Amino acid sequence: MALIVQKFGGTSVGTVERIQEIADKVKTFREKGDDIVVVVSAMSGETNRLIELGSQMQQKPTPREMDVLLSTGEQVTIALLTMALNERGCPARSYTGSQVKIKTNNAFNKARIEDIEKEKMTNDLAAGRVVVVAGFQGADEEGNITTLGRGGSDTTAVALAAALKADECQIYTDVDGVYTTDPRVVDNARRLEKITFEEMLEMASLGSKVLQIRSVEFAGKYSVPLRVLHSFKEGPGTLITLEDEDSMEQPLISGIAFNRDEAKLTVKGVPDIPGVASRILGPISRANIEVDMIIQNVAEDKTTDFTFTVHRNDYQQAMEQLEETAKELGASECEGDNKIAKVSIVGVGMRSHAGVATTMFDALAKEGINIQIISTSEIKVSVVIAEKYLELAVRALHSAFELDQVPGGEG
Amino acid sequence: MALIVQKFGGTSVGTVERIQEIADKVKTFREKGDDIVVVVSAMSGETNRLIELGSQMQQKPTPREMDVLLSTGEQVTIALLTMALNERGCPARSYTGSQVKIKTNNAFNKARIEDIEKEKMTNDLAAGRVVVVAGFQGADEEGNITTLGRGGSDTTAVALAAALKADECQIYTDVDGVYTTDPRVVDNARRLEKITFEEMLEMASLGSKVLQIRSVEFAGKYSVPLRVLHSFKEGPGTLITLEDEDSMEQPLISGIAFNRDEAKLTVKGVPDIPGVASRILGPISRANIEVDMIIQNVAEDKTTDFTFTVHRNDYQQAMEQLEETAKELGASECEGDNKIAKVSIVGVGMRSHAGVATTMFDALAKEGINIQIISTSEIKVSVVIAEKYLELAVRALHSAFELDQVPGGEG
Repeated sequence: MALIVQKFGGTSVGTVERIQEIADKVKTFREKGDDIVVVVSAMSGETNRLIELGSQMQQKPTPREMDVLLSTGEQVTIALLTMALNERGCPARSYTGSQVKIKTNNAFNKARIEDIEKEKMTNDLAAGRVVVVAGFQGADEEGNITTLGRGGSDTTAVALAAALKADECQIYTDVDGVYTTDPRVVDNARRLEKITFEEMLEMASLGSKVLQIRSVEFAGKYSVPLRVLHSFKEGPGTLITLEDEDSMEQPLISGIAFNRDEAKLTVKGVPDIPGVASRILGPISRANIEVDMIIQNVAEDKTTDFTFTVHRNDYQQAMEQLEETAKELGASECEGDNKIAKVSIVGVGMRSHAGVATTMFDALAKEGINIQIISTSEIKVSVVIAEKYLELAVRALHSAFELDQVPGGEG
Repeated sequence: MALIVQKFGGTSVGTVERIQEIADKVKTFREKGDDIVVVVSAMSGETNRLIELGSQMQQKPTPREMDVLLSTGEQVTIALLTMALNERGCPARSYTGSQVKIKTNNAFNKARIEDIEKEKMTNDLAAGRVVVVAGFQGADEEGNITTLGRGGSDTTAVALAAALKADECQIYTDVDGVYTTDPRVVDNARRLEKITFEEMLEMASLGSKVLQIRSVEFAGKYSVPLRVLHSFKEGPGTLITLEDEDSMEQPLISGIAFNRDEAKLTVKGVPDIPGVASRILGPISRANIEVDMIIQNVAEDKTTDFTFTVHRNDYQQAMEQLEETAKELGASECEGDNKIAKVSIVGVGMRSHAGVATTMFDALAKEGINIQIISTSEIKVSVVIAEKYLELAVRALHSAFELDQVPGGEG
């Protein structure tokens, strides 16, 4: 008998009928003998409806009140799902974030979980009840309602799994697992049976929007086995877990991530003196622009070129800021390009294998794709290329690394 | 500087625009220097929408879960109103029933308030904030969300006023006060400046659905001055308060209440022995049928006739039950009429004045209206008549008691 935390997002509980399907699904698990804690989001569309109502009341809604408003979305879902479970003869009880004592700090709209009281949940589980918890919300020390920010329901599920020492945390979504790359780009993209937390983090931050980064970090930190599954299709999904050190057959790379919403900016002829990087990026981050890659090569003639990438939407603003800074620094010129894309190969296997980067660069060269920027971490290699080559690059890499084949298998 | 609790019902906060109007109104009060606690209901239609959702999930929704579901209605309103107040530069803070610690028993769907913690509210008031509280809801000792049943927001307002020792509890509605009778029936029905709790109770239970009976009882018990006002029109409304013993000019009667949803049932030739009344009414109340008037006249020939009235919708079921009981008792026959109406005159003044009933009976006789049943209490006289005479009777009584005239005034 296992203890499983299951999380169903907004589209999985988007209608009365879907909530009933989820109730059937949960009941089936329960009847297998497992203890079940279910975490649900607001019915899809509901959060946006509430935000719209709030913005009609106040130009910049008071954060505390916004959380009072938004938290009703999940509260409706927990009540409805619990009723549907009870109707099926499956005893269940619902809890809001405040009720189950998901204690957070008081950063309204983006609170962080600090502690969870297990007592009510363990009592219910011992009494044979399914526990249904509102995702995305908690309460601070003074009892003010807080929310964890968008996608926070994943985090709630992982935090509950960690607190309860659950055997598995299952995240139900509209995809049946994590793929070697986006199946819309590569026909024979393959569902991964397993992926490590680190790889998943690199995949997620690079645009594979299956899971919230925060929840993967959280799961990794507390070693909570995480599984991504489809809400309405059968299948084992993808298990996200710690690196399996015993496994001989670690695949070289696990997947190819990409992101087409990038823009790059370069300032040339910057004096090569300490403190320059922070003088360039300080104003950018103060303008709340998130910087992705940062590249500075070795200096020539006591000046250097400094390049960074931002989200395409922030390109214009970032360029204006950069031109100002360039003047102050006496740099020679600024240039940029918002028609670029980033492609990354990700895999814990590359730690112990040389030549992975070479295979990547060869495959791109063979297709005549020019690499503009290279950046590496321990388990990934990222390149920036012209956006028009994105699909071609992803397909070339998928096949160069034989990602359509099951590693070590007969497939 | 007074402390005022203001309650706005579902239609008063039914749209974004109306909530904004209410915010303007509250701000005006606040700027006069009064401390304000606002109690709000769910936006009109919302509670029904939630009930409908719940009933799609479960044939007989789990009461605990129904309260989790329904309580979101008011929670949305408190957040929106608080935002609207903040937008107007009027600092405010919202609280759900659980947050402000409206402690109730655990009778889900119809909980009773046991205690209220004042601390958060008094802190906010001292800091110059308007306190916005969700009506209709609380939490039991274990933190389970409870609701007080329909109309419970009035009760919340009165309970808060009592706990905070407020100077006045203002109930905003869609009428501008309590009238001598229904203005749709009598053109010159007059708004009362003042009415006692007792009179209001008799008026309310007889069909003047301005206030929930429970909230009036509550207000009377804790001597909370209650005022009924119109949400969107100016005017002093009607003050409901303790009997003013100093007043020389107590009006004879304050108003005329009526109810057309009545049906009467009579069982004839019942043996006049102890225990008969409970044998007749026991099965009726076990069938959850509420009995209004009960009349038994003195016996003749060791048998008696026993009459009672019920809501018209319960007539058929009550009659079937009565016929069964009649057989068991060996009574001679049953008869009934569901085309009747009840008209009552209400007034604390009749305590000290004889002849009020006579004036009533005379006025009805003059119009040729036959009185079928008479029942009296200390401050009211009720008669049952054929329904077709209802309007005629009300108008005749309104003018016989000169209710269009301000008592002791020049009007």
